[in-house]
Amino acid sequence: MKIKKSQITFGGETIFATHNSISTKTEMNFSAFVPGKDRKAKKAIIFLSGLTCTEENFISKAGAQQFLADTETMIICPDTSPRGVNIEGDKDSYDFGEAASFYLNATEPKYSENYQMYDYIVKDMTQICREDFGVSTFGIMGHSMGGHGALMIGLKNPELFESISAFSPIVNPALGPWGQKALAGYLGGDSNNWKEWDSTELIKSGVKCSSEILIDQGLSDEFFEKELLTDNFVKACDKMGQKVKTRYHEGYDHSYYFISTFVSDHIKHHLN
Amino acid sequence: MKIKKSQITFGGETIFATHNSISTKTEMNFSAFVPGKDRKAKKAIIFLSGLTCTEENFISKAGAQQFLADTETMIICPDTSPRGVNIEGDKDSYDFGEAASFYLNATEPKYSENYQMYDYIVKDMTQICREDFGVSTFGIMGHSMGGHGALMIGLKNPELFESISAFSPIVNPALGPWGQKALAGYLGGDSNNWKEWDSTELIKSGVKCSSEILIDQGLSDEFFEKELLTDNFVKACDKMGQKVKTRYHEGYDHSYYFISTFVSDHIKHHLN
Repeated sequence: MKIKKSQITFGGETIFATHNSISTKTEMNFSAFVPGKDRKAKKAIIFLSGLTCTEENFISKAGAQQFLADTETMIICPDTSPRGVNIEGDKDSYDFGEAASFYLNATEPKYSENYQMYDYIVKDMTQICREDFGVSTFGIMGHSMGGHGALMIGLKNPELFESISAFSPIVNPALGPWGQKALAGYLGGDSNNWKEWDSTELIKSGVKCSSEILIDQGLSDEFFEKELLTDNFVKACDKMGQKVKTRYHEGYDHSYYFISTFVSDHIKHHLN
Repeated sequence: MKIKKSQITFGGETIFATHNSISTKTEMNFSAFVPGKDRKAKKAIIFLSGLTCTEENFISKAGAQQFLADTETMIICPDTSPRGVNIEGDKDSYDFGEAASFYLNATEPKYSENYQMYDYIVKDMTQICREDFGVSTFGIMGHSMGGHGALMIGLKNPELFESISAFSPIVNPALGPWGQKALAGYLGGDSNNWKEWDSTELIKSGVKCSSEILIDQGLSDEFFEKELLTDNFVKACDKMGQKVKTRYHEGYDHSYYFISTFVSDHIKHHLN
């Protein structure tokens, strides 16, 4: 881990760093907030960002630091994909390739070498938290594409992640245009291979986490009906006995103004 | 006023808008947070941003909304200069011209038509607050170049602005490289003409505001010693009997991570 910048925030450190990832075979960026001055924490919340974002969006706009300042929990925000790996076309659209990894392990030959973001989160990120920050327990949180990532990765690793929450998550990517494009592009056209990366399908298959999942969703979110499909996940959870607290918010959109409003509740959810 | 975007935040509205300014003779951008849903407030805090910023930096990064949500005070963030007025060279450097107005009324012929940002703040901004939002009282706050703006404009209008605060302000622009470049470029080379736009000089000349001024300054701010010159202002205030509360903070830099840490105290300062 190489720290590029550290900025004191609420008595702790907001850090920007890079490291060489074994999973993505390239240098990766991340940001973090670590309470206090000793760069140590007991728990880490991994925050996964949405399409077009970098490691900076959440840490600079959500206002989460104040709610972690007096705790022993850090938050770490990986980038949304490998960058600069020279795959033809991976910069051509906002919803596929760079900044649009969907946090899965690609199997299509063009992407399978570097787009191993599921492994990157589960292995590289947790290793950094353990070895560089002394972390022993984890929660996972995300927004939009990163909300999909948080639910999917959390559900697939119930023993690793003790708490899961999401803002405006894509809960059923196999049924929305963004998700379909990504799943087909990274995994190929056979939709049977998509199921293990789709939170709603995972729940339907009997996967569970022991703690209640928290989801916040704005009702004026322009992507709510076509891309996010919140209700599909909630119905599957109800049917399969997975506890989920879903809060719909009148007037709120898909932005960081929405996230900033409810981030304190998410931090509390992960601290409990 | 034409509202381009409104985003619900902490139950109120974060607004991005444009209007035609009489003072700068061009369309100007601003952002605002208005608590509640009726777009009305009793007091407005005008926040002036620093070099390179737009109307967006503070409202998206400082985390101020939460502290205003249950009050009758709004915050309004003008842009840092006129834009697109086609003055040759006004986009050539980060510290002069666009995004670097220094909030004064330019007298140099090239800039005097549009760079009337002092008038813009004192007249146009307050008029919008009164007519469009029902505001009757004002406070002024800013950061860096905008901290200079807040101190200078607040001190020159003690009856208009009932509260003044600044993060990392340029307090004595006549003695720092950024300030000297700006004052010479907008006002000409005779430094006698700079004094009325320099907060430290204003205090020395006997100008006063009745309430205590709040200043927060990071001690790891890279611009502290060369550009900001905080102590010159504090000494002048002490000598002339102007109340000022200056807080120096070990380890903090010039960034919005610093601002976000102490913004709640500034909001309280203006609410009292």
